[in-house]
Amino acid sequence: MLCVIAAAMVLPAAVDIADGRNDWKVFFGSSVFTFFVGGLLLLVGYEEQASRLGVKEGFLLTTLCWIVVTAFAAIPFVGLGLPYTDAYFETMSGLTTTGATVIVGLDSLPRGILFWRALLCGIGGLGIIVMAIIMMPFLRVGGMQLFQTESSDKSEKVLPRPFELMTATAGVYLLLILACTTVFFVLGMTFFDAICHALPTLATAGYSTHDDSFGFFKSPALEWAGTVFMALGAMPFVVFIKVARGNPMALWEDKQIRAFVGFLVVTWVVLGGWLSIVRDIAFLDALRAAAFNVTSIVTTTGFASEDYTKWGPLAIGAFFILTFVGGCSGSTAGAVKIYRFQIAALLTRSHLMHLLSPNRIVKLVYNGRRLPDDVPFSVISFLALYMATVGLFTLVLCALGLDLVTSLSSAATTLGNVGPGLGEIVGPAGNYSTLPAAAKWVLSFSMMLGRLELFTVLVLLRPEFWRA
Amino acid sequence: MLCVIAAAMVLPAAVDIADGRNDWKVFFGSSVFTFFVGGLLLLVGYEEQASRLGVKEGFLLTTLCWIVVTAFAAIPFVGLGLPYTDAYFETMSGLTTTGATVIVGLDSLPRGILFWRALLCGIGGLGIIVMAIIMMPFLRVGGMQLFQTESSDKSEKVLPRPFELMTATAGVYLLLILACTTVFFVLGMTFFDAICHALPTLATAGYSTHDDSFGFFKSPALEWAGTVFMALGAMPFVVFIKVARGNPMALWEDKQIRAFVGFLVVTWVVLGGWLSIVRDIAFLDALRAAAFNVTSIVTTTGFASEDYTKWGPLAIGAFFILTFVGGCSGSTAGAVKIYRFQIAALLTRSHLMHLLSPNRIVKLVYNGRRLPDDVPFSVISFLALYMATVGLFTLVLCALGLDLVTSLSSAATTLGNVGPGLGEIVGPAGNYSTLPAAAKWVLSFSMMLGRLELFTVLVLLRPEFWRA
Repeated sequence: MLCVIAAAMVLPAAVDIADGRNDWKVFFGSSVFTFFVGGLLLLVGYEEQASRLGVKEGFLLTTLCWIVVTAFAAIPFVGLGLPYTDAYFETMSGLTTTGATVIVGLDSLPRGILFWRALLCGIGGLGIIVMAIIMMPFLRVGGMQLFQTESSDKSEKVLPRPFELMTATAGVYLLLILACTTVFFVLGMTFFDAICHALPTLATAGYSTHDDSFGFFKSPALEWAGTVFMALGAMPFVVFIKVARGNPMALWEDKQIRAFVGFLVVTWVVLGGWLSIVRDIAFLDALRAAAFNVTSIVTTTGFASEDYTKWGPLAIGAFFILTFVGGCSGSTAGAVKIYRFQIAALLTRSHLMHLLSPNRIVKLVYNGRRLPDDVPFSVISFLALYMATVGLFTLVLCALGLDLVTSLSSAATTLGNVGPGLGEIVGPAGNYSTLPAAAKWVLSFSMMLGRLELFTVLVLLRPEFWRA
Repeated sequence: MLCVIAAAMVLPAAVDIADGRNDWKVFFGSSVFTFFVGGLLLLVGYEEQASRLGVKEGFLLTTLCWIVVTAFAAIPFVGLGLPYTDAYFETMSGLTTTGATVIVGLDSLPRGILFWRALLCGIGGLGIIVMAIIMMPFLRVGGMQLFQTESSDKSEKVLPRPFELMTATAGVYLLLILACTTVFFVLGMTFFDAICHALPTLATAGYSTHDDSFGFFKSPALEWAGTVFMALGAMPFVVFIKVARGNPMALWEDKQIRAFVGFLVVTWVVLGGWLSIVRDIAFLDALRAAAFNVTSIVTTTGFASEDYTKWGPLAIGAFFILTFVGGCSGSTAGAVKIYRFQIAALLTRSHLMHLLSPNRIVKLVYNGRRLPDDVPFSVISFLALYMATVGLFTLVLCALGLDLVTSLSSAATTLGNVGPGLGEIVGPAGNYSTLPAAAKWVLSFSMMLGRLELFTVLVLLRPEFWRA
C-alpha cells in the first residue's frame, strides 16, 4: 500500500522538480506551471489515496511527504549557490509558510528565484489548508477532530465529499490570491511584486522580494491592504465557501472568526495607542504600524513594515507573546491557533466551577455544538506539549551557542511558523543566515513539527507505531 | 462561619506580629519565639477549622491567610527603613520560600533582621508542607487530589488523622533543620550562619546572610552538604515519616523521588561535564558547582555559589528551563513539580497510543495506583495555565519597562518560587531592589499565585464563587 503512494508521489514530484532544476533559468514560466500542476496532482493523488489508508499510514505519509518534497524543492536554491543546509531551511520555511529567510540581498536576486520563493509559499499554503481540512481531522490531531465532527454533521454540511471540498477551498484560495494581486497592483506595486507578495500574504508566509519587506514600499494604503489580506488568509476557508454560497452571516456566526477579529482589533488599538503616546506620533500612523505588524505576527505571516523591536519593552514583550497566538484553524496560519485558546478558556472556566461545586456537570459547547469527548484533552495536551517543545528547542539552540532571546524566540517563531523572532540575529531586521548550520536544521525540523501540529510527527517516535 | 475563622486568625497573628514589631530590637529572642508559637497556633487553628469548612471557604481562607500574614510580617522590615513595597516583597518572598531579595548589603545588617528573614522562610516552609498535605488535596487543586487518594487509601495510610500527620511532618521538618544546622556548624559556619542557612535550605527558600550567598564560604564541603539538604527539602515529607517508622525502602519505592533524584544526577553530570570541558577545570570541581547550583534551582531554593549566568549560553538556557521544573509534591519546593511532568509524560504516551489505535484503552497507573478520573485534566490544565500565567506576567513586566529576559525570567522564577532569574538585574548576581515598585507588587502576587498552585487564587476570580 505504501509503495503505491510512494510511486504516485515520486512521479509528479520528479517531473516538476526536474523541470524546476534544469530549466528555471531558461523556461521559468513553463517549468513553474508544470510544478504547480504537478503539485496539485500530487496533493489530489495523495489525498484520494489517503482516504483509503489506515491511520498509521496517514501519519507516516504526511510527515514523509513534507520531508521529501522539501528535499527536492530545495534544489533550485542550490543552483543559486546556497549551501544545501541553507537551501533546505529556505524551502522548508517557504513550504511551511513560515517565512524565515537565510538569503541576504533579496533586491538584487534574479526574479526567477524570487518567484520560486513566493510560489513555494503559495503551494505550501494550499497544501496546509487541504491538510487541515481533510487530513488532520482524520488523524484526530490536537483537537482537530472538532472540525471533522462539524463537517460530518448533516445539517451543516458545507460540501458533500472531501474532493469537492478540497476543490472549492483551492478555488477560494486562488481567487483570494488573484484579488490580492490586483489590489496590490492597483495600489502601486509592480505586477511582479504584486504577485510575489500576494502569494506569501494569503499563505501567511511572509517572503518578500525586498530586504526591507513591506517597509520597502512606504505606502500606507498598501500596508492596510496587506493587513486585510493577511487577516483573510488566517480565517477558516470553509467559511468563505459558505459566504460564496449565499450565507454572508457565516462570517459573523463563526465563533473563531469573531474572537480572532476581536483580538486583533483590541491589540491594534492598545499597541497603537501606546505607540502614539510613546513616540508622540499621530494616532492613525501608530495604529497603521501596529495593525500591520501585529496582524503579520498573529496570522503567522511575518512581514514587517519596520523594526518593531525598537518600539520599546512593551512591544517586545507583546510581540513575543503574539508569536504563540496564531490564526484560525482551516486556514494557512500556524502556531497555537485561536480555537485552542477558546477551548482552553472554556475548560478553565468549567474546571474552576468544578472545583467550587464538584457535583455540577458543566456542558462544554463550542460554536453551538457539544464538544466531542476527546477534544478537551487533545487541545490541552497540545498546549502543554507546544510549550515543552519550545523549551526543548530553546535548550538545544542555547547549547549551540545562541543567546537566550535568540534561542527562545526562534524556537517559538519556527514552531509557530511565524517567521521573525527577537534580537539582533533573528529579529524582524535580522536574518537567519548567520546561524550555525546545526541550528538551521533544528529550526527546519521545528517548522515541520509546528506545521504538522506536533502529534503527527511525535506519534512516529512511539515504538508502538512500528510494530505490526 | 468566616467571621469565626477571621477572629481565630487575627488573634494569634496580632499577638505575634505586635511582639515582632515593637520588641524585635530589644527582646528579639522572645518575640520570635512568640511569633513561632503564634504561627503554629494559627496553623493548627486554621487547619482544624478548615476540616469543618466548605470548599469555598477553604479557597478564600488560604488566599487571605497569605495576604494578611505577609502584610503583618512585613512590619519589621519597615522598621529597618525599607519602603513598605520592598518590605512586603521581601516578606512574601520569605513566606512563599522564594528567596528573591531586595536588600543590598546583607553582610552589614543587624543579626536580628537576618534571623527574621531566615525565620520567615522556616515558617513559610512549614505552612507550605502542611498546606500541601492537608489543604490542597482537600481543595483538589492541580492534580493534588492524587495524594489525597493516596492518604485515604486504607492499606497505605501513613497516619490516621490530619492533625497527627501534621504534627509528624512538622517534627520531621524540625529534625531536618536541626540536622542541617549541626552539619553546617561542624563544616565551618558560625552557629548563627548555620541556623540562618539551615532554615532557608530546608524551606527551599534561599535567603542568605551574605550578599555572595553560599559563595561567601568558599567551602566545597559546605556546598555538597547544602546540595544534599536542599534535595532533602524538596522531597515529600510523608515518605520521611514512613522511613522513620521503619520502612527505609519507601524512599526508593516512591516514583516521584526516583525521578527527582535521577533527573538531578543526570543534569549534574551533563552540566558538570560540559563546564569542565568549556572552562578546562577538574571534573570534580565542575561537578560540585553544577550540582550545587542546579539543585538550588530545581529544588526552587535559589542559593548560588557563583554567577552561573557567566557559564555560557547552554547554562543560561538550561537554568531557564530548570526554573520550571521544581521538586516533589508534599515538600517545600515550588514550580511545576516532578509528579506533574511524570503524569504529563504518561498522558502524552497514552494519547499517542490512542491516536494510533483509537479503540485501545490505556490504563493510567502512577506509583502503583490507578489515576483518579479528574487527575489527568487537572495536571495538564495546570501546566497550560502555568505557562499562560508566565506569559501574562512577562507582558505586564515588559509594559513596566523591563527587558524581555528580565521580565520572562523573573515571572518564571517568582511563579515557581525559585528566587534568582536571569540577566543583570534579577540574575544570581543581581538584586530585585532596582525594579520599579509596580513590578515588585506584580512579582509578590506572582509568588503567592505560584505558592497556592494557581487555582486556589484563580477560583476567587470566578463570579460563581461570590454567589450564595
